[in-house]
Amino acid sequence: MIYKGIIHKYSELLDLPAYSITVSLNEGNTPLIPIPRLANELGGDFKLFIKYEGLNPTGSFKDRGMTAAISEAVGRNVKSVICASTGNTAASAAAYSARAGLKAFVLMPAGKVAAGKITGAIAHQAEVIQIDGSFDDALELVVKISDKHPVSLVNSINPYRIEGQQTGAFEICEQVGSAPDICCLPVGNAGNITSYWKGFRRFNEVKHTGLPQMLGVQAAGSAPLVLGEPVKNPETVATAIRIGNPARGEEALQAAHESNGRIISCTDKEILEMQSRLAQEGVWVEPASAAGVAGLKKEILLGNIDPKDKTIVAICTGHGMKDPDIIVNQAELKEPIPVGLDKLEEVIFSN
Amino acid sequence: MIYKGIIHKYSELLDLPAYSITVSLNEGNTPLIPIPRLANELGGDFKLFIKYEGLNPTGSFKDRGMTAAISEAVGRNVKSVICASTGNTAASAAAYSARAGLKAFVLMPAGKVAAGKITGAIAHQAEVIQIDGSFDDALELVVKISDKHPVSLVNSINPYRIEGQQTGAFEICEQVGSAPDICCLPVGNAGNITSYWKGFRRFNEVKHTGLPQMLGVQAAGSAPLVLGEPVKNPETVATAIRIGNPARGEEALQAAHESNGRIISCTDKEILEMQSRLAQEGVWVEPASAAGVAGLKKEILLGNIDPKDKTIVAICTGHGMKDPDIIVNQAELKEPIPVGLDKLEEVIFSN
Repeated sequence: MIYKGIIHKYSELLDLPAYSITVSLNEGNTPLIPIPRLANELGGDFKLFIKYEGLNPTGSFKDRGMTAAISEAVGRNVKSVICASTGNTAASAAAYSARAGLKAFVLMPAGKVAAGKITGAIAHQAEVIQIDGSFDDALELVVKISDKHPVSLVNSINPYRIEGQQTGAFEICEQVGSAPDICCLPVGNAGNITSYWKGFRRFNEVKHTGLPQMLGVQAAGSAPLVLGEPVKNPETVATAIRIGNPARGEEALQAAHESNGRIISCTDKEILEMQSRLAQEGVWVEPASAAGVAGLKKEILLGNIDPKDKTIVAICTGHGMKDPDIIVNQAELKEPIPVGLDKLEEVIFSN
Repeated sequence: MIYKGIIHKYSELLDLPAYSITVSLNEGNTPLIPIPRLANELGGDFKLFIKYEGLNPTGSFKDRGMTAAISEAVGRNVKSVICASTGNTAASAAAYSARAGLKAFVLMPAGKVAAGKITGAIAHQAEVIQIDGSFDDALELVVKISDKHPVSLVNSINPYRIEGQQTGAFEICEQVGSAPDICCLPVGNAGNITSYWKGFRRFNEVKHTGLPQMLGVQAAGSAPLVLGEPVKNPETVATAIRIGNPARGEEALQAAHESNGRIISCTDKEILEMQSRLAQEGVWVEPASAAGVAGLKKEILLGNIDPKDKTIVAICTGHGMKDPDIIVNQAELKEPIPVGLDKLEEVIFSN
């Protein structure tokens, strides 16, 4: 069967309205990459995989939910969509809206979005509206305006976003042969952990693939679900999870509880170290994406998780290209050398 | 069968040494995206698809050849690799070297590489060496140094790069059900057109899938194969094909000739217009990637190609995130607005 995107592949498992008109960029079908060296470093005797969601069409996991949300909106004959975004949702909404011929409005907190992300929304000709406020302010605004006007809200409050995002869990079960023992992932607005947990349960109902423990990981400076209360001014380098008041916080806590898992936090230092470590395995992810694996490492080192004989899948939600600045700002590029073999030999063999 | 990269899937069709040790990031398996609106604009009555190679692990088509080149190098017990690059090769070499535990050196022409590209190489901790010269100077240098020292050259002069890159053609034949009638793609160092033509022929031998016409497209300011001579100072916004003296120029001309196709050029303006047009279809590619489709449009409008009833596949070689600056520099972002529904309504409904 030729692959035609997640709605085409999983339509029977997704609760989408019959009036939906599929708008797809052949999203999903992302690789599950084994990371044996890191597993060995963390004690060995277990299987560690990355589900590399950065290889979706707009470079993040958001495309799975967006194809569903836009397909529903088009079927309803909506003409424009709106979302609040730290960047990934904006790029995805912009791309799928462009494909469907809809106008997309994206609200972003001014100055607090990674450069590589806002660019995607601009490339697809969405109207980018910066606001002098946080992501949470932006989310409140788009909820209000979509309540009042016929503009479809495509944040993960939109239930079809959750339906589509479930498919990441379906694919993992198919790729592993069952649900993994543990599934770790970053938690920002909490739509993704909600979706994965729903997806694992749905797939288990139909295919009896079992259920994983869910390990949700927030950034320490933006960890409302760990602290038990909203964070007024969330701060973290992991811009994709820089959210102080998650729209689906309750469901995230429930997913952790029901799956016998946890929601924890990692410092920015731990997150960036893991980003660098994963790049050494050949997988370059944006900072937020490294949070899941950083949290796993932390839990293993603390003795809270015994990985022995387990299969563990970490969801890496966005590609490293989404946030090039974080790399460039850490790098020191040497001065150019003149064209000549002698000089090149010197550079290469002087190490 | 669980997908495990192009060597695993197509090993029987690839001429790789038995001593190779597979190093993979599950590259390949990229989507073939239908672009019906643009096909209609260009006269209709034909099928147009984009093979979206930007969804390979490092964001470009280079990963297909790199998995093969690095697998061969590791099998030979090489400890370091080198390449000249306008960016995509560097990121790919860096990622696969990191995964294999090899040291990667990448030479880039100073100041002439897209920002999003050099970042990939840095992220994967390659040693980036800028030279005061062109890509062609860099290529000459890496050939010399790898002739003299045990450093494996992983530019597309490396025959295993060509072997691996063929798999793009294999996948297209499988996805379409046969070879397309026309395959259009950008031409820089000419390794890709060489590989695709080889791949279509190879697949046809085994699976009788037929052969396409190859339409290779260079940028007007960097079109040695159209001009019939090397270009000393190539100039184009499409940095990935800014190469004045292609390593596989002869083979590219042969591919065009044998397939009853052509190699033509497009202006930067035509390339950027097509980049923007494809983004409106939901597919954001780097400028060079738009060259193939820009060339197709040109040939159709000139009457050189009659698309009627044909199946046409355009290879889009790299993701738009590879070159965010080209978008950012064209964009005018409006001033942030204060948090408030009135102001947001004004912005949205004043259009």
